[in-house]
Amino acid sequence: MYSFQNDYSEGAHPNILRALDMINYHQNNSYGLDTHSDSARELIQEVLEDYSVDIHFIAGGTLTNLTFISHILRPYEAVVSTETGHINTHETGAIEATGHKVYPVLTEDGKLTPDLIRPVLDLHENEHWVEPRLVYVSNPTEVGTVYTKEELENLYAFCKRHQLYFYIDGARLAAALAASEHTHLTFPDMPKLCDAFYIGGTKVGAMFGEALVLVNEDFKEHFRFNMKQHGAILAKGWIMGVQFEELFKDNLYVRLGQQSIERMQPLKEAFEKAGIPLLCEAPTNQIFPIFPDGLAEKINKKYLTTFQCKPDKAHTCLRFCTSWATNEEAVKDFVKDFEEMIKTE
Amino acid sequence: MYSFQNDYSEGAHPNILRALDMINYHQNNSYGLDTHSDSARELIQEVLEDYSVDIHFIAGGTLTNLTFISHILRPYEAVVSTETGHINTHETGAIEATGHKVYPVLTEDGKLTPDLIRPVLDLHENEHWVEPRLVYVSNPTEVGTVYTKEELENLYAFCKRHQLYFYIDGARLAAALAASEHTHLTFPDMPKLCDAFYIGGTKVGAMFGEALVLVNEDFKEHFRFNMKQHGAILAKGWIMGVQFEELFKDNLYVRLGQQSIERMQPLKEAFEKAGIPLLCEAPTNQIFPIFPDGLAEKINKKYLTTFQCKPDKAHTCLRFCTSWATNEEAVKDFVKDFEEMIKTE
Amino acid sequence: MYSFQNDYSEGAHPNILRALDMINYHQNNSYGLDTHSDSARELIQEVLEDYSVDIHFIAGGTLTNLTFISHILRPYEAVVSTETGHINTHETGAIEATGHKVYPVLTEDGKLTPDLIRPVLDLHENEHWVEPRLVYVSNPTEVGTVYTKEELENLYAFCKRHQLYFYIDGARLAAALAASEHTHLTFPDMPKLCDAFYIGGTKVGAMFGEALVLVNEDFKEHFRFNMKQHGAILAKGWIMGVQFEELFKDNLYVRLGQQSIERMQPLKEAFEKAGIPLLCEAPTNQIFPIFPDGLAEKINKKYLTTFQCKPDKAHTCLRFCTSWATNEEAVKDFVKDFEEMIKTE
Amino acid sequence: MYSFQNDYSEGAHPNILRALDMINYHQNNSYGLDTHSDSARELIQEVLEDYSVDIHFIAGGTLTNLTFISHILRPYEAVVSTETGHINTHETGAIEATGHKVYPVLTEDGKLTPDLIRPVLDLHENEHWVEPRLVYVSNPTEVGTVYTKEELENLYAFCKRHQLYFYIDGARLAAALAASEHTHLTFPDMPKLCDAFYIGGTKVGAMFGEALVLVNEDFKEHFRFNMKQHGAILAKGWIMGVQFEELFKDNLYVRLGQQSIERMQPLKEAFEKAGIPLLCEAPTNQIFPIFPDGLAEKINKKYLTTFQCKPDKAHTCLRFCTSWATNEEAVKDFVKDFEEMIKTE
Repeated sequence: MYSFQNDYSEGAHPNILRALDMINYHQNNSYGLDTHSDSARELIQEVLEDYSVDIHFIAGGTLTNLTFISHILRPYEAVVSTETGHINTHETGAIEATGHKVYPVLTEDGKLTPDLIRPVLDLHENEHWVEPRLVYVSNPTEVGTVYTKEELENLYAFCKRHQLYFYIDGARLAAALAASEHTHLTFPDMPKLCDAFYIGGTKVGAMFGEALVLVNEDFKEHFRFNMKQHGAILAKGWIMGVQFEELFKDNLYVRLGQQSIERMQPLKEAFEKAGIPLLCEAPTNQIFPIFPDGLAEKINKKYLTTFQCKPDKAHTCLRFCTSWATNEEAVKDFVKDFEEMIKTE
Repeated sequence: MYSFQNDYSEGAHPNILRALDMINYHQNNSYGLDTHSDSARELIQEVLEDYSVDIHFIAGGTLTNLTFISHILRPYEAVVSTETGHINTHETGAIEATGHKVYPVLTEDGKLTPDLIRPVLDLHENEHWVEPRLVYVSNPTEVGTVYTKEELENLYAFCKRHQLYFYIDGARLAAALAASEHTHLTFPDMPKLCDAFYIGGTKVGAMFGEALVLVNEDFKEHFRFNMKQHGAILAKGWIMGVQFEELFKDNLYVRLGQQSIERMQPLKEAFEKAGIPLLCEAPTNQIFPIFPDGLAEKINKKYLTTFQCKPDKAHTCLRFCTSWATNEEAVKDFVKDFEEMIKTE
Repeated sequence: MYSFQNDYSEGAHPNILRALDMINYHQNNSYGLDTHSDSARELIQEVLEDYSVDIHFIAGGTLTNLTFISHILRPYEAVVSTETGHINTHETGAIEATGHKVYPVLTEDGKLTPDLIRPVLDLHENEHWVEPRLVYVSNPTEVGTVYTKEELENLYAFCKRHQLYFYIDGARLAAALAASEHTHLTFPDMPKLCDAFYIGGTKVGAMFGEALVLVNEDFKEHFRFNMKQHGAILAKGWIMGVQFEELFKDNLYVRLGQQSIERMQPLKEAFEKAGIPLLCEAPTNQIFPIFPDGLAEKINKKYLTTFQCKPDKAHTCLRFCTSWATNEEAVKDFVKDFEEMIKTE
Repeated sequence: MYSFQNDYSEGAHPNILRALDMINYHQNNSYGLDTHSDSARELIQEVLEDYSVDIHFIAGGTLTNLTFISHILRPYEAVVSTETGHINTHETGAIEATGHKVYPVLTEDGKLTPDLIRPVLDLHENEHWVEPRLVYVSNPTEVGTVYTKEELENLYAFCKRHQLYFYIDGARLAAALAASEHTHLTFPDMPKLCDAFYIGGTKVGAMFGEALVLVNEDFKEHFRFNMKQHGAILAKGWIMGVQFEELFKDNLYVRLGQQSIERMQPLKEAFEKAGIPLLCEAPTNQIFPIFPDGLAEKINKKYLTTFQCKPDKAHTCLRFCTSWATNEEAVKDFVKDFEEMIKTE
């Protein structure tokens, strides 16, 4: 049964496996203080066109988010997130476990705006309330929408005016960059648009690993103490260094993002042709079509997808996700199958 | 400059790289719920001769310790550890960061005994004190000593009599098992000797990953919730599954432990021959020779070792560590070099 | 300027001051293990008609909530509360600071129902989500509404069916009991309606102090450890013991609740007569009238009240609060003043 | 049975009760933002001869310590304390519960010195260790010894040189000030000798309440947020304001300290006359005589004292504690009784 469930079902890009194999018996400094990690940091700085940022490699997204957020907030400070934000839903209260409230904001499309944040600031007026201090967004969001460069500029300007930090969860950043005709976003924009962000590796060709980029000077000192305290320093840190070296050679990272979006196109077109609506406009490698229940059932008999929600009693919204490793034939087969299914619907 | 600094300077056992390569494009269930992780769990259960234990793979030792300990303790409960215990020194307060006191006990040789724990229990008499609840030991210890099976039996019996949980940090468990002429310890003993332990992969042939074994029924339920909350569930969990599959085929795990000890022998003999005393009796792949300062300096000009302490004004104790990947030639070269150095001393 | 801002502006009921004076030079056991605390516990058990409950005196409401909740929840467990719940708004993230998410539920009238909780349970399906475990309500609520005995019965039955604990914040419990023609609630009902609750003293005649009542057997053991850890054991605990002894003699506690409601009646009638709507039906000592902005301004020039919200651009909702200590003359004066104000409106 | 167990067995100084009674029906601002708290703050600033310090009233010592320490430390920072320090022993891991390690230092007499702290700094060399950041002492200490002004000056100078904060737990500060012939310590010295300290009320005439004095500018901002988060803002804060107003009129605070020491003198002399040694030199209202076991038993049959330790198999060390409320007759009676007891010994 072919799976469109997520973009982390397969291993690593072959370049990565080859590189790991090649240096297997070299002796490396431990804890991320090795030459591969250093070289990966430089490659990323080069792509970002900013050599002042600090970069740390951490094994996963939740671990990155909780280590970062617990580092920058004082005990009474809180995070503002969309209700659908990953930290508010799918991290088992990881942020709260470090002592900080996540304040959820209802949205139409999974995206924060200054107008949605302003009332939160008004509400939190004194020491009986937590102090909102960090604005958290994901780009792309958890419902497949994307922030444009302009939207991020507005958000960051708003944050700076209100003494808020701005952090972008880039678990799938490659897709937001690859969808640049929608987002107008390039790597060099990123450090200008926020105080910190992470470049997701797990979902873009790495076995595991995210590159956290600290832009704001205030975050840099002692960060490794917080990493170690949360178990986020890997003994053999160069394993992540090597992976990001490969991902940042010849623009591989963004190319894998493009490839994951390309794999999605035939599915998207097939759904459009069949008049299947999407939950939100979703220009990346995740889409959320809304099927009549019967059709959803038929699909799930032959393919793995992720249940998203029931928008009404008769319909089911499923998530389809492709990746750099998605098989082109499997996509074609699905389209063929799907066209059969709707015939008999 | 050849390094004897630690046992995590090189990559992974070649079997592991090969296996990862072979399944690279397979689609796997995420979050450790895949067939490789399941098969690795079964291989470990088989070796332990206990199919009732729960096994979880976690990316590193600190992350394993903090996830486990925060799961089993209630807020006012504390851990008893030797003063040299890894959680008391080298984890940046990771346990305290989850809210729990680590109560340090002074020892001669890095090893806890019932006689050393008893006064701690006597002291903590009521609700003004934390409640000692978990006894933490490492085997081998952080100073290279080992617990025998009999010592562990005594400790566990003591713990059970006093409603204490007993947990063994097995970052280098392979070495304790390989040193069975000293420890009389075999894999099937382990689940009978404690409430939980972990089988370290990082220092024994894996790129990363530890296998936490939960023996006590009370620990099992909801453990994955705590893992996820601490960022300890890897999206591509099968990457660890595959590694432990390989380590637990044909007894590879213990054999790598043996090999790391064998590599140490020539060094040990050279030091003995030269009359260099050791900090403690240390039958595994870590030794702590005490050199006259001048000699230590000479060594450090040509080899990487880890500074341990200054036992007196004129002497320096260094840690030498070998691993499954330590080069036989490099060991021979060192011995030759060393014999030259002491001639001119 | 007379204040209707809250019900904690004045000192203690005179019986309390007298009792404290009388025993001032007696020697007492410390930490709440004294005869006055014991006798207060018995008086409360008698009124509750339940001698199996455990009772602890804690200096304030936030301290009570955070000590209790951190005691009963495991790390990954969360609280379900209304969005307006005190722990979700006015406790500066105290619950999150102990590591637990507060999941906010939108309501019309500040009251939870099984129908509002059910979707929360459905949403939280596996280890990627926190585990809802405690349902928190206040009676009366933060917007002046009350739960009836029947509503609490339904909630508790629902909670038990779904392995949820049920906890009632009774900061103003006296008012809910005094409004028994609306709530049908009596003291002996309380331990039958929830797993734990607290009887607020601060707002009902005490200088400070709340009586936390633990009904569920599972909560009782080691509770004092958690109290001490949170600084919630007072050295001179009998100071709270004496206060609750007085409050639970001759039904004083409920009588003070009645008196606070009686003081509110003239205000309520005056507003009704003037056609001023209330935010919610509010039968206790807190009401939330919605004034045209100009009128609100006039009121605030002569009286202290608490700003609640702006329901629309032209109106302002203020909180009026009375207490056992509210001066009858002051109420009369307000009514006279108010009638003058609306004449010129 | 008369109790010499502690200095918090009786109520409040009569001036306090009188003052509370007098203002009982006044309306006050809540949460410590009232005129009594303000006036108490000014009285304390006047006595300290420093109007730049911030002063907060908190209900108890543990709550003060945990609120203060969690406010000033970043997650990976730790406290250095003597092993006998109150936060290391008698606060049920309250500091660890806020995430911070307490690093215990062995001492002869319960007192820290630069020479004892230096090795701790040397040991904690990088991000694998917690970062020592706060030095915590009590004056008087938990074993009845005192720091002189000169010793505190040395400690503070050392702390400043090493980027350490210095905090003095003054649960019994009155006694250290009253023992000024030993300590040379006066109130105006205090803000010059540390970054923060608290003036204990509970053990010096108040019903409850400690005055935390923040000297270091860095600690002041947002402190009330942290207080509220830990349940350390009392709704009726003026109850503590009034108490400290009374304690700081006419030097009452130090006079109560003197009185507690005076009450101790007859006991001390009686023990000296009988050749009973003390655990440490203890010039305040706590002494720790070491009795032959039989004598200790006889004493405990007629008087309440606190067991301290068994220095050897045949002896028992008891704590005797007097207070401002200790009855002069009771002291005389004890001396008479004691002299009888030793006759028959």
